[in-house]
Amino acid sequence: MERVRASNRLLRYSSNKSLLDRRLNPSSQNSIHNSPSGYSHGFVNKCRDFHLYNGNHKWSVQTCFGFLRYRGETFRDSVERGCLEKAFRCRGFGSLAAKVERNPSFSTLNADDISYFKGVLGEKTVVQEEERLAIANTDWMHKYKGSSKLLLQPQSTEEVSQILKYCNSRCLAVVPQGGNTGLVGGSVPVFDEVIINMSLMNNIISFDQVSGILVCEAGCILENLITFLDNQGFIMPLDLGAKGSCQIGGNVSTNAGGLRLVRYGSLHGNVLGIEAVLADGNVINMLGTLRKDNTGYDLKHLFIGSEGSLGIVTKVSILTPPKLFSVNVAFLACQDYFSCQKLLVEAKRKLGEILSAFEFLDSQSLDLVLNHLDGVRNPLPPTMHNFYILIETTGSDETYDRQKLEAFLLYAMEAGLVSDGALAQDISQASSFWRIREGVPEALMKAGAVYKYDLSLPVEKMYDLVEEMRKRLSDSANVVGYGHLGDGNLHLNISAPQYDDRVSSLYL
Amino acid sequence: MERVRASNRLLRYSSNKSLLDRRLNPSSQNSIHNSPSGYSHGFVNKCRDFHLYNGNHKWSVQTCFGFLRYRGETFRDSVERGCLEKAFRCRGFGSLAAKVERNPSFSTLNADDISYFKGVLGEKTVVQEEERLAIANTDWMHKYKGSSKLLLQPQSTEEVSQILKYCNSRCLAVVPQGGNTGLVGGSVPVFDEVIINMSLMNNIISFDQVSGILVCEAGCILENLITFLDNQGFIMPLDLGAKGSCQIGGNVSTNAGGLRLVRYGSLHGNVLGIEAVLADGNVINMLGTLRKDNTGYDLKHLFIGSEGSLGIVTKVSILTPPKLFSVNVAFLACQDYFSCQKLLVEAKRKLGEILSAFEFLDSQSLDLVLNHLDGVRNPLPPTMHNFYILIETTGSDETYDRQKLEAFLLYAMEAGLVSDGALAQDISQASSFWRIREGVPEALMKAGAVYKYDLSLPVEKMYDLVEEMRKRLSDSANVVGYGHLGDGNLHLNISAPQYDDRVSSLYL
Repeated sequence: MERVRASNRLLRYSSNKSLLDRRLNPSSQNSIHNSPSGYSHGFVNKCRDFHLYNGNHKWSVQTCFGFLRYRGETFRDSVERGCLEKAFRCRGFGSLAAKVERNPSFSTLNADDISYFKGVLGEKTVVQEEERLAIANTDWMHKYKGSSKLLLQPQSTEEVSQILKYCNSRCLAVVPQGGNTGLVGGSVPVFDEVIINMSLMNNIISFDQVSGILVCEAGCILENLITFLDNQGFIMPLDLGAKGSCQIGGNVSTNAGGLRLVRYGSLHGNVLGIEAVLADGNVINMLGTLRKDNTGYDLKHLFIGSEGSLGIVTKVSILTPPKLFSVNVAFLACQDYFSCQKLLVEAKRKLGEILSAFEFLDSQSLDLVLNHLDGVRNPLPPTMHNFYILIETTGSDETYDRQKLEAFLLYAMEAGLVSDGALAQDISQASSFWRIREGVPEALMKAGAVYKYDLSLPVEKMYDLVEEMRKRLSDSANVVGYGHLGDGNLHLNISAPQYDDRVSSLYL
Repeated sequence: MERVRASNRLLRYSSNKSLLDRRLNPSSQNSIHNSPSGYSHGFVNKCRDFHLYNGNHKWSVQTCFGFLRYRGETFRDSVERGCLEKAFRCRGFGSLAAKVERNPSFSTLNADDISYFKGVLGEKTVVQEEERLAIANTDWMHKYKGSSKLLLQPQSTEEVSQILKYCNSRCLAVVPQGGNTGLVGGSVPVFDEVIINMSLMNNIISFDQVSGILVCEAGCILENLITFLDNQGFIMPLDLGAKGSCQIGGNVSTNAGGLRLVRYGSLHGNVLGIEAVLADGNVINMLGTLRKDNTGYDLKHLFIGSEGSLGIVTKVSILTPPKLFSVNVAFLACQDYFSCQKLLVEAKRKLGEILSAFEFLDSQSLDLVLNHLDGVRNPLPPTMHNFYILIETTGSDETYDRQKLEAFLLYAMEAGLVSDGALAQDISQASSFWRIREGVPEALMKAGAVYKYDLSLPVEKMYDLVEEMRKRLSDSANVVGYGHLGDGNLHLNISAPQYDDRVSSLYL
């Protein structure tokens, strides 16, 4: 099998309100924010453990001041010894490291600490109530649970800086938390870390109508940014199921991909600037707003996808494209995975500039959605197909774009790439097609326990992994594969009646 | 005036053959390559000076093992002292540092060194001939001239590694050189550095038709890659005037922008992987080929635009989009700069997905082209306008795309944004429109001495700088402004009969 690079950081679930509501403690009238917050971070304090997540297991890799320690060797040591490559490789494979234990050199919170924080932040944003802490200590999947006694809600970069400076001097472990929508437990404490919740830093700082450059604070909820931009005639180059809760700081820190990556590329291309606070409280201002900036090393990229291990992202500037009004969605069936690939190549060529999504799901995924979600139906006749593709186009002209898509679909049918298909006739139908694709994670949750993997693979090898897992698991679990075919990003999910180490032992 | 961030690294000149030929020593039958090579690099040896270029002046900033030294403080020192932000800022402004002097701690080449290199590389690729060295010691603008006695042409990463390891141990300064098309002297030695010329590492390693991912060696000439991809039905996301000579390794190391940035974004979004050799010879393999790769810190971004100061890029993997066959070009006139901006906003909105270039030039630029280049004519009636815009669209359908552009042009005329315009009727006309825009640097060269600046600025402030320079220089020089309006990238050029410090003293 190809070398598999697991990137378990993407946030994936439906934006369906009832589902999101499950995450809120219904008895809490004072929940942290409209939606609980948190992003997948393992932020370092002076000498805090940094967690790499490999599948459902947490592994510990020591860090120190943002330099990754691996088996007692820091990244900086490696550079000094000329072993940068080795350091790189080590970082990719946390599974070699030991299981995590609380580092006894960390301090434990005391009354003086609380007084200090209250002095800096005020009473209201220093949260010790058990109910609110219970929510913030638990990840969305309810798989990981920390035991933090303190949640802080800074309202400015200066406050984040003061918190970190103090925690650093006191050797108090911290964990940054955005929308807490991560699926790998990175946004919740492992032990008793102080939770730094970013949800109150939710201001839009500026928006430039000429360049389309948005500058905002890290705690802005993605959906709020999408709505704001929509009113300005622009769109976010990033969209994902968790948009109703996830925050832009967390998106950037986890290098979230999502549904628009195939069209607008990754955050490395779209994020123009970042402001971040280092573990010792120093504020790094890389908040540029230029489309191209070649002044010195472009260090902001280190923060994109570094999961908070180098610092807490406090502000972001991002290039947003103008909103295009002509959107068309088709739901297609393919007989085999090879046809899906071929269809992708042809779509990139024939729809090129208007292609905005190319998502796929296997028949097992579709079955789950149809069986577990109310009101979802298959837009195609009930003949069973092995794969389904959702194609979305976005352009500036309704007539031309639709004709282009229709011509493409006709070609795909005649070429035998597609065995059946439906073209949405209105927004409601388009939404119902999207509901199938976006509903898979929700259906999986309803079906029982789920082992989730989010992998980047060469497109041609992507589905081999699903088949391999099916072979290994046989009847013990239901293996489903879906995701962003256009980006080589597979969501491999193993669905079982309940969490059971015997299931994972069959394939790990 | 807005804080101006000068990024003097872009390679800009026409791909016109006669112009390129000027760079070749006509008497040399053994020139390094079909086209002299080099990219804007100030590569560090053990304790070599790293050069920042600010306009026409060279400034020295000490470096040590890839960590930038500024006023005796290394970047690493700054991190340790928690002054990362300060270190960032210092790096952007070389003009504060002292003028460069050869660091006496560097060794001087001796016969043993030559023997060593011949042992590693063979006789032919260890170049000591004066004529070839004279070419490699001189930049394209003939403004900077080094005195290197040795040019090496490695043919593999392993050879680059051996060279650097040896030079590091001997404390021999080096300068990497790609197509030597840089305009700021970064690709030529300052003193007697060993030139490491990358032109023989010019193999295409792989190309994946499904994903469009190209992997190649750093010495591949951009135009050769464009041609290769064209035959595969794909295009490079990067195109620039110097394509006939510049090399992909240099493009990546200088984070070249070019003509397609407005459509396909920067190299930070398109480069998926890099292999590089550090100053001590260690090879860093970051040559991933995944659209999204969240495994560890994405350190390749540090090499994009770092001008060789961290290492020599030896291989690159890059995401290439499918070739779209419908191309249309329009040449438009605007009365004022505000109309140009408004036109850009509307073009992004109304042409959106098919817009592939939005270039501008002022009337002074057009005059230069018309006066100095043979066979170039103004496609518009001779009424004088203040600004000219070249719009290119690229899409998948000839009919729809042309109709879309025509409708946009009609709108722009009716809205008073455009005072005149011409739509190319065939490829020949389209080329002639492009010739005007791409011919500006060549015309400037023919007009005499030229002080070149390549700046990223907020679009709305971009032309203020040109006007400010005109005010300061009055009749002493001809100030022209042109460039990539869509990206906020201005080429500010000051044209004078000859180089004269009295000219630059008027505006610096």
